[in-house]
Amino acid sequence: MSLKIGLLGLGTVGAGTVKVLRENTDDITSRAGRPIEIVRAAVRDPALPRDCDLSGIELDSDADALVADPRIDVVVELMGGIGRARELVLAALANGKSVVTANKALIAEHGKEIFECAQAHGQVVAFEAAVAGGIPIIKALREGLVGNRIDQIAGIINGTTNFILSRMEADGADFAEVLAEAQAKGYAEADPTFDVEGIDAGHKLAILATLAFDIPLATDQLHTIGVGKVSAEDISFARELGYRIKHLAVARRSEAGVELRVEPTLVPKNAFVAKVDGVMNGVSISGNAVGTAGFYGPGAGALATASAVVADIVDVALGHAIAPPAMAQEVSFVPQSAVVSAHYLRMRVTDQSGVMKTISGILAGLDISIEAMVQKESSEGQAEVVLITHEVSTGAITQAMDELAACDAVHGGIVQMRLEHLSE
Amino acid sequence: MSLKIGLLGLGTVGAGTVKVLRENTDDITSRAGRPIEIVRAAVRDPALPRDCDLSGIELDSDADALVADPRIDVVVELMGGIGRARELVLAALANGKSVVTANKALIAEHGKEIFECAQAHGQVVAFEAAVAGGIPIIKALREGLVGNRIDQIAGIINGTTNFILSRMEADGADFAEVLAEAQAKGYAEADPTFDVEGIDAGHKLAILATLAFDIPLATDQLHTIGVGKVSAEDISFARELGYRIKHLAVARRSEAGVELRVEPTLVPKNAFVAKVDGVMNGVSISGNAVGTAGFYGPGAGALATASAVVADIVDVALGHAIAPPAMAQEVSFVPQSAVVSAHYLRMRVTDQSGVMKTISGILAGLDISIEAMVQKESSEGQAEVVLITHEVSTGAITQAMDELAACDAVHGGIVQMRLEHLSE
Repeated sequence: MSLKIGLLGLGTVGAGTVKVLRENTDDITSRAGRPIEIVRAAVRDPALPRDCDLSGIELDSDADALVADPRIDVVVELMGGIGRARELVLAALANGKSVVTANKALIAEHGKEIFECAQAHGQVVAFEAAVAGGIPIIKALREGLVGNRIDQIAGIINGTTNFILSRMEADGADFAEVLAEAQAKGYAEADPTFDVEGIDAGHKLAILATLAFDIPLATDQLHTIGVGKVSAEDISFARELGYRIKHLAVARRSEAGVELRVEPTLVPKNAFVAKVDGVMNGVSISGNAVGTAGFYGPGAGALATASAVVADIVDVALGHAIAPPAMAQEVSFVPQSAVVSAHYLRMRVTDQSGVMKTISGILAGLDISIEAMVQKESSEGQAEVVLITHEVSTGAITQAMDELAACDAVHGGIVQMRLEHLSE
Repeated sequence: MSLKIGLLGLGTVGAGTVKVLRENTDDITSRAGRPIEIVRAAVRDPALPRDCDLSGIELDSDADALVADPRIDVVVELMGGIGRARELVLAALANGKSVVTANKALIAEHGKEIFECAQAHGQVVAFEAAVAGGIPIIKALREGLVGNRIDQIAGIINGTTNFILSRMEADGADFAEVLAEAQAKGYAEADPTFDVEGIDAGHKLAILATLAFDIPLATDQLHTIGVGKVSAEDISFARELGYRIKHLAVARRSEAGVELRVEPTLVPKNAFVAKVDGVMNGVSISGNAVGTAGFYGPGAGALATASAVVADIVDVALGHAIAPPAMAQEVSFVPQSAVVSAHYLRMRVTDQSGVMKTISGILAGLDISIEAMVQKESSEGQAEVVLITHEVSTGAITQAMDELAACDAVHGGIVQMRLEHLSE
């Protein structure tokens, strides 16, 4: 018997999903063990032209009727947004249907309610397409690496900011001009806040952390810093020292607790994520059995995202979809001031003897040891000092920045970024 | 009710599997929905010390009794070899047990018989650990990318040869000396034939191709060239032209048929597989929905391989293991002479005017167009000519090499390698 799909939304990903199911019908039917049939779709405006073949699909604007339609086995939610989507997903589950969704904001913000609803009704919610587009990262985490205790996920899970940083590095260009180019190319929205401030990546990171650590969805515990603080100058200094700057999403679990952060971060140039360029996504997962494994691919795009949606649909068809996460682990979060990492600092100083000694003295006084320190002549009797610390708490580095800023020899603000010694 | 495991073999991976199941028991039990219990193991010499805690495991040398033991649900075959392992796996399946194995040679050589036996008895055979160690590549191929028509797999799936090439590149060292180092470090066997000649990678490639293209296991159709033909000089020339040389396994499907090959191959330095260094493995998969996705991680090692074994066991526990491949597609293989790709050629020539013209003329006469051509002064009135062709059949390039070798101005043999323009 065929698996019957009701589709909410026929935008980019919705149309892509229809295309993939039609284009690869024979292979998909054979792998799923039965035909997969889109019987109905609901969109805001059924009269609009759509970028796919809609033959055989009943199309109207009645989403409520769709999620109650007794013929439908699986509701595939590709409409986006979190208000209406939440209502419809909950209704579909309550009506005994499985749900497949690509909606990261919905899962990150309302996952608890949705998972509980699915459990209560014995249904599954599959959301591979919500994180890293076509990369089967959720399957890797929940199934492929299921034997591991996962301790860290480090990833580039927003193509827009990675495009911006890659272009800044390649051209020596500044943030604002590359952002404008990204907007012109359609890689960045007219209002780019969601991407450049790390909110989108934060949503995805919260989802990955929930699956990896079995903890509640913790969007309120995300620490995010936008990519706008990165300058061409810092990219160049970092490169000279053997690092690249990435808008890195990190979920880490240690005895101190859990950390969830999205920040511009220096990573060694040979690290897996350092080699992820342009709009691509890449995620490295560290577990106590596998060591570190890396996953790479397109994080967006109609067909790539549809690839993940279809994989979820086939899992449902086979009865192989994984049950909603229990989110059962007790969790405490590491306070920001106690988060430990290496740091990159850059400051402008008076170019005179004794300045390096003063800086070293302040850091030594706070027990911050220095891994590398470079002084570059600048203009007008000033120099740039760039240094990389060994691991130290954020509290200590903040204190050090205050003391350094108070020195007569230090001029203007001090640039600071985290540095992660990720494995290759 | 617990899932009861019988373990064949307690070598490196066997002991690793016991360790991972013991170390991560709580997480694994919760994810599998029930306890996983190793009740029995069979080894050649039960008196030998083992690198894991064997408490609660009945240990003897009676493998036949183990595969017939009515208590056991899943036989995990980690003994290696293909004679005894084949008998025992077939017996386990006939006795109504599922099988998990890390044995690539067994699956590559006897997969057809084993899959048919599993189908006949309604059992599954899971073999994630047989390819690329801890990387969940088989799951990615069969499940994560299930919505795709896969057209190409390009991978580094032998850590030994990748270690050798990486070290040759880093140190400018020659093959023989790096091989000796790899043997000393335990990365290469005393008899390294299986690795350096591409046989091990070929086994893995045949398995991936069967899953990707739904074709029979075709170890007899593998075209393999050993890594020993690569010289430090070629690595250096390749680098200068923007390429790296990898011992690349390629499975490709086109209208012309299927190609399966493991050869030293030039790849653009920005390609995903070009960035895979040392003993690590990396595989890129191209499908008509996802585009290209890349998978990276440790291809060997006790715990990394155990990570894959445990993932398979959990899939069996959940009833989520994928049925044996049907291998149903009609397949024709592209004859070697008709395989099309770009090529790298290097030859030593008399350093005089007109030689480049002669070479270009020979290639043009065979309709081979040149993408790049470099001449380097050498010693004693000779020069090295290095060139990269556009795409051309192997037949044509062989003809060209014959004609070039017959020229008075060309001295000694001509070095030739394939070049693949893989995506990033």
